[in-house]
Amino acid sequence: MVTVKWDDDKVIVLDQRELPLREKYSAYTHYTGVAQSIIDMEIRGAPAIGIAAAMGIALAAFNLDVKEIKQFKEQMEGVLQHFLSTRPTAVNISWTVNRMKKILESGNDIQVIRETMKNEALDILKADVEANRQIGKYGSDFLDDGDVVLTHCNAGALATGGYGTALGVIRSAVEQGKKIEVFACETRPYLQGARLTAWELLQDNIPVTVITDNMSGHFMSSGVIKKVIVGADRIAANGDTANKIGTYMHSVLAREHGVPFYVAAPVSTLDPDTPSGTDIAIEERSVAEVAFIGDIQLVPEGVHVRNPSFDITPAANITAIITEKGVIDKPAGKGIKEIFSQ
Amino acid sequence: MVTVKWDDDKVIVLDQRELPLREKYSAYTHYTGVAQSIIDMEIRGAPAIGIAAAMGIALAAFNLDVKEIKQFKEQMEGVLQHFLSTRPTAVNISWTVNRMKKILESGNDIQVIRETMKNEALDILKADVEANRQIGKYGSDFLDDGDVVLTHCNAGALATGGYGTALGVIRSAVEQGKKIEVFACETRPYLQGARLTAWELLQDNIPVTVITDNMSGHFMSSGVIKKVIVGADRIAANGDTANKIGTYMHSVLAREHGVPFYVAAPVSTLDPDTPSGTDIAIEERSVAEVAFIGDIQLVPEGVHVRNPSFDITPAANITAIITEKGVIDKPAGKGIKEIFSQ
Repeated sequence: MVTVKWDDDKVIVLDQRELPLREKYSAYTHYTGVAQSIIDMEIRGAPAIGIAAAMGIALAAFNLDVKEIKQFKEQMEGVLQHFLSTRPTAVNISWTVNRMKKILESGNDIQVIRETMKNEALDILKADVEANRQIGKYGSDFLDDGDVVLTHCNAGALATGGYGTALGVIRSAVEQGKKIEVFACETRPYLQGARLTAWELLQDNIPVTVITDNMSGHFMSSGVIKKVIVGADRIAANGDTANKIGTYMHSVLAREHGVPFYVAAPVSTLDPDTPSGTDIAIEERSVAEVAFIGDIQLVPEGVHVRNPSFDITPAANITAIITEKGVIDKPAGKGIKEIFSQ
Repeated sequence: MVTVKWDDDKVIVLDQRELPLREKYSAYTHYTGVAQSIIDMEIRGAPAIGIAAAMGIALAAFNLDVKEIKQFKEQMEGVLQHFLSTRPTAVNISWTVNRMKKILESGNDIQVIRETMKNEALDILKADVEANRQIGKYGSDFLDDGDVVLTHCNAGALATGGYGTALGVIRSAVEQGKKIEVFACETRPYLQGARLTAWELLQDNIPVTVITDNMSGHFMSSGVIKKVIVGADRIAANGDTANKIGTYMHSVLAREHGVPFYVAAPVSTLDPDTPSGTDIAIEERSVAEVAFIGDIQLVPEGVHVRNPSFDITPAANITAIITEKGVIDKPAGKGIKEIFSQ
């Protein structure tokens, strides 16, 4: 299973919309296809779309049939803007775009820029997997043998270059011989938990139980769930965290029941330029994602539907943020600057 | 639109599984069909299944081709047990069964018992609609012009003999000229909110917006939702309330955000014999309800699924319980006995 990879002159993307029933790959030879696959959520997950955007931008550098450096740079600026506009909430795309922008600005040889961008994309992928293994190592200290751990959405191998952030922590604990059971919230409307997290963990033989999102409170109040661990799409300077819609709700319930609530994310998800959660743009997606499942219409014609894709979990509800550079214990009031100064 | 009715020698049930796309009715000439329609959730909602059970039991009295009163009573006892076993959490079925049991025990003329049971069933239906209008009258005082009101599941006309409990309160406020907008949680796994509540309110031209269950916290923290109102399946003597899975979660979020949380239910839902929420049996339904929507498989083969159909909202999270006999303000610590003494 590969989430996204560079193959010769193509970007290969696992079509996550087809999971868990089919493992189907798309091969893109043009950057617009990669951008569209991010918009359409063929690939999703903050780190994974950061990597896909890096590969898409590198692919664009090869796609552009331009001889003159000034013209090349102008057109590449348009490509960077195009990728920035694909999905607004996750910081990883703008982080990727900034890295590629530096390469674009620093060189004057088109072929060198192309190769440098391609190598940068491959480095981003490699570094992401390494970061996840390090996050797993730090995070596994928080999980005890016998724990039942709730997770929301998919912060696994499918959301990253591989191994995963939240699921990487669980994988690492399991590799250490701890017995961990996962409760995966199905994660409406896109069902990343039911379709992706369950599928990933099944492949690794980690016991997983799917519940609907509205059951988390019940299984916390009945004492089943011992820990919560989720990924992140953007972490503001004060520790407020944007993640998949529903994360906030689980965080309030976890606090209510004294259940520790962990966020696992690479440093590329930390955004020191965004002061707090209220400054994070929340993407509102198509109403059809809520109103239909496949061809089945769930909501009657003529009824309004809202579909914010993310919500904000205040730092006060987070027990610890786990990054590859270390753990921010009780992030409320601390800020994330200490990670950047390391 | 009719939820359930007695038509000559048949019980007519609106098949709610087909909504919102088709308005299809089933006509049952034998009581086992009515019982199965409750088990299969063709009809659902605590008051509605109480009424359907009453009609089913009356139908059984006509179905049984027995001349001898002793034999008739023995067989009818079996019928009562059969209806009691259809769905365990809602108290309304046992309330109905107790009323029918009294009729069975008090008479010795089979034909008189049959007619008395039929009239009792019709009375239960009529009284339910009247109770809902009275609940609406009491409850509408709590809703202000301009309110955006969150509801979960369907506590409307489709869950009752007509008018509805939670939706009855909203209807009553609208009839008084107040502008009310409803946020309907879709209510996984059975989607009563998306399919039924949205459909009902659309027919009455009451503005309704469907959201996934995991969005309630987001729309409370962003200040959109001003009140929460839900129905109930069983209210214990201390005010703890069993209702559709997810209700508890909304109640915790409402308390977190200072949003008033109301339960609207007829007195038949109050159960003085059950001391507290921990004494209420929670029905666990088929995993297929979570794993599939129609023919579409959401959860991979081999993954565990849990499907508790209800959860318990502690009295402490409830601002008021609204019944047709009056309002129990701040039910925590008070108990529901005062309603029975009225």
